[in-house]
Amino acid sequence: MDLKSIINIYIDYRTKMQALGYASYIISWDSETEAPVGCLEERSKQVGVLSEMSYRLERSDEYINCVKTLYDNIDSLDELLKVEIKKVYKDLMNSLKVPMEELVEYSILISKSQNIWAEAKVNYNYSLFKSTLKEIIDFNKRYVKYLETESLKGYDVLLDIYEEGMTKEKYDKFFSLLKEEIVPLVKQIKEKNINKDPLFGKLFDVNKQKEFADYLMDVMCFDKSRGLIKESEHPFTSGYGTTDVRITNHYYEDLLISGIFSCIHELGHATYEQQSNPTLDSTLLGGGASMAMHESQSRFYENIVGRSYNFWVKHYPKLKSIFNEELKDVSLDDFYRYINNVECSLIRTEADELTYPLHIMVRYEIEKLIIESDVNVDELPSIWNNLYKEYLGIDVPTDKEGILQDIHWAGGSFGYFPTYALGSAYGAQMLESVKKDLDFEKEIGKENLKQINEWLKNKIHNFGSTKTPDELLNISTGKSFDAKYYVEYLKNKFSKIYSL
Amino acid sequence: MDLKSIINIYIDYRTKMQALGYASYIISWDSETEAPVGCLEERSKQVGVLSEMSYRLERSDEYINCVKTLYDNIDSLDELLKVEIKKVYKDLMNSLKVPMEELVEYSILISKSQNIWAEAKVNYNYSLFKSTLKEIIDFNKRYVKYLETESLKGYDVLLDIYEEGMTKEKYDKFFSLLKEEIVPLVKQIKEKNINKDPLFGKLFDVNKQKEFADYLMDVMCFDKSRGLIKESEHPFTSGYGTTDVRITNHYYEDLLISGIFSCIHELGHATYEQQSNPTLDSTLLGGGASMAMHESQSRFYENIVGRSYNFWVKHYPKLKSIFNEELKDVSLDDFYRYINNVECSLIRTEADELTYPLHIMVRYEIEKLIIESDVNVDELPSIWNNLYKEYLGIDVPTDKEGILQDIHWAGGSFGYFPTYALGSAYGAQMLESVKKDLDFEKEIGKENLKQINEWLKNKIHNFGSTKTPDELLNISTGKSFDAKYYVEYLKNKFSKIYSL
Repeated sequence: MDLKSIINIYIDYRTKMQALGYASYIISWDSETEAPVGCLEERSKQVGVLSEMSYRLERSDEYINCVKTLYDNIDSLDELLKVEIKKVYKDLMNSLKVPMEELVEYSILISKSQNIWAEAKVNYNYSLFKSTLKEIIDFNKRYVKYLETESLKGYDVLLDIYEEGMTKEKYDKFFSLLKEEIVPLVKQIKEKNINKDPLFGKLFDVNKQKEFADYLMDVMCFDKSRGLIKESEHPFTSGYGTTDVRITNHYYEDLLISGIFSCIHELGHATYEQQSNPTLDSTLLGGGASMAMHESQSRFYENIVGRSYNFWVKHYPKLKSIFNEELKDVSLDDFYRYINNVECSLIRTEADELTYPLHIMVRYEIEKLIIESDVNVDELPSIWNNLYKEYLGIDVPTDKEGILQDIHWAGGSFGYFPTYALGSAYGAQMLESVKKDLDFEKEIGKENLKQINEWLKNKIHNFGSTKTPDELLNISTGKSFDAKYYVEYLKNKFSKIYSL
Repeated sequence: MDLKSIINIYIDYRTKMQALGYASYIISWDSETEAPVGCLEERSKQVGVLSEMSYRLERSDEYINCVKTLYDNIDSLDELLKVEIKKVYKDLMNSLKVPMEELVEYSILISKSQNIWAEAKVNYNYSLFKSTLKEIIDFNKRYVKYLETESLKGYDVLLDIYEEGMTKEKYDKFFSLLKEEIVPLVKQIKEKNINKDPLFGKLFDVNKQKEFADYLMDVMCFDKSRGLIKESEHPFTSGYGTTDVRITNHYYEDLLISGIFSCIHELGHATYEQQSNPTLDSTLLGGGASMAMHESQSRFYENIVGRSYNFWVKHYPKLKSIFNEELKDVSLDDFYRYINNVECSLIRTEADELTYPLHIMVRYEIEKLIIESDVNVDELPSIWNNLYKEYLGIDVPTDKEGILQDIHWAGGSFGYFPTYALGSAYGAQMLESVKKDLDFEKEIGKENLKQINEWLKNKIHNFGSTKTPDELLNISTGKSFDAKYYVEYLKNKFSKIYSL
């Protein structure tokens, strides 16, 4: 068979798997945002059948041979397909290394484990979860063994899955720097003990919060004809290609800024997706380049832009006009200070910009132990609590606010957490380069972020996932990852706010 | 291969086709209620691929042989599977009679024709649509030829698809009776000329209308854990099995009763679905028995219950409490009279209970001509207008309010319209039987419709589509369809209201 015919077979498979992926995207969106609780069982059944159909396509001999042949002829493929086949081949070969029965067994385990975790969490009872966690850990350790190569061993196997090119060595260096520079800075700020909440005790009408979220969508130039906003328990971004990009938000009547910053955060993810090159929509190369690269964009908008002074010089009047009664005694300076309050708190998702990476550091240290040592699951809570004491100086009252707080490990995700901190660091490195091309402080004070969007589009978004994170950093900042920009950024910003 | 293995193969195919059907249900729900306009093209592409996957399953030799074998061994199957295979076999054999190329060509035509129709409608320009309509008609005529049998010829082929067992002969008899009894009644009422709208010029806050819709859901005992309500341009009911039943509604600020009665109408459809036997969920025998049977339920609730006096004795105070200012001068009697206003109007979907079937009669007459004669598409508008003059006594000002008003023909649906009128007539026949078992006037005046739901559940809903419409009528009313109940019901109700 000639190469052209093989490419057509490949595209035929890809088209079917994409359509099944599209179906699963819409079903999951529906399920997260509105599906009635009573249909859970029926939906799970249908989703199971669709996943199996997709899985059978991917595991068919015809498809596997097709991908192998294309990979053997990689130099004869056009540029895009070359990149795509490299990715697909790598993933497929990895997936073939794991015995199918184990994968099936694991997927059954994971489908139940999140409920078990949730049950343990509401009951403040880690012991309900620990044997399940052990099973998940054991699978991941075996999984790592199956996937190990000459150059990739242990935890590095998992780190590479979530962020191609990142290793324990690199993350160790990154987190060491944070430990050295940020942990003391947080301690210093904590000693000043001047946190305050000028919004304390006030209630903010949810419909008015939505009005402001709508305003933020315009500030961020979100294209409403190619996306929408809705509500869900936990905010997230979802979508398909560049023409269907959806975000959710969550509003708390007593916590105005929660809904504001989660909205900007999700709009950051959404901007990345909407600004990807539309010609990539039909390939497997659309969307973000990696977890950390995606997070770099959401946190760039949320923190570097959204928690900056000049942004609020422009937009605080609008917020005040919506909440004129509630905010009448809260000055711009009060508000700015408030949204940048540093507080050593227990919950990662509620952490401020400065302490956030320390929460990640705790998880990173524990994941290393989990994957590369024989640590007993019984000991994990106390290890967790000790690390919180060491890095954040706080005591963890119960496992609910401790080791049970995140869903990730219950979902089998090890190696994912570090990308959250890495994303923030990527963003700070990009900021340096943005500033060379644009008058950043002026741009964030404008009616909308068009120019900043444009910069990020040209340097990052437009490439979809055709480049590795390292390539994208080199394109956008002229160099590979260097944590110093992030550390400098944080030190400058918070030393100034806290007059250190 | 033994029968058990063949049954398993059949169930395996069914499971996959159902999962694809489920995906297409959720995608279409999303598309009708919230999907961004910009993703239309991408979505159409994905839906196309999923449909083709389903189609290829249904047209595979393995599946076809499997269904044929099961049909040949029908007496060895258990009761449910027997009914299902009979249906599946009939549909499959019909579908195999039509050359695949023609079906593909037709589906392409239909995917475009609805846009062409919409374009013609907004431009008041039938000539933009007529050549497309001709193509659709030509296909349907060929389709009829392919499907004709010894006992089923011409238009009957299509009528039977939408309502098994119904023929031109039966419909002719039905509509003749309406022509004889209802057309003169409408004329009489029209001469009295005492229509009035006590709500004219008032505006009704949409959020308050939603509050009342929510109240109506409780009155109808809609199970919110197994369904939801949302908004869309045209109200509809959708869902999957008994655990996921969704309705949409549409609210007009200046037309309070539109949102009320479309809500009750859709809740009628939803009640049918929610009260179907859940053990049928995994089969192809869940949901409604036929188009007309479904419509009988929606119209039973909307008109027979919802436009009755005693229903509003109970619920008008609630409506007044929500709209205390707007309704303060509108008495219960005024309101009852208003919701039963008879008016010879142009638009089917806005027609009152009495004139509604006359709108259907116009379409039925024209469909007969279209399918069984060589009527020229150029003549259809004038035929339409003449029939409106004859049955409703009104002049049609433009084709937008005339022949272009409905989407059905643009979607290739011929034989569907008559089921709307038939459904109302089924409902009236059921009313007679309900009254034998329940104190109907007392029940509709209760806080909720539990008892009436229960009756309909036992006599209709619970059977899903395991019975034919005729069987269901015999179960619920002890006899086959007889139009006299409907005509008597309409004559009694409206003679009383209009003191004839």
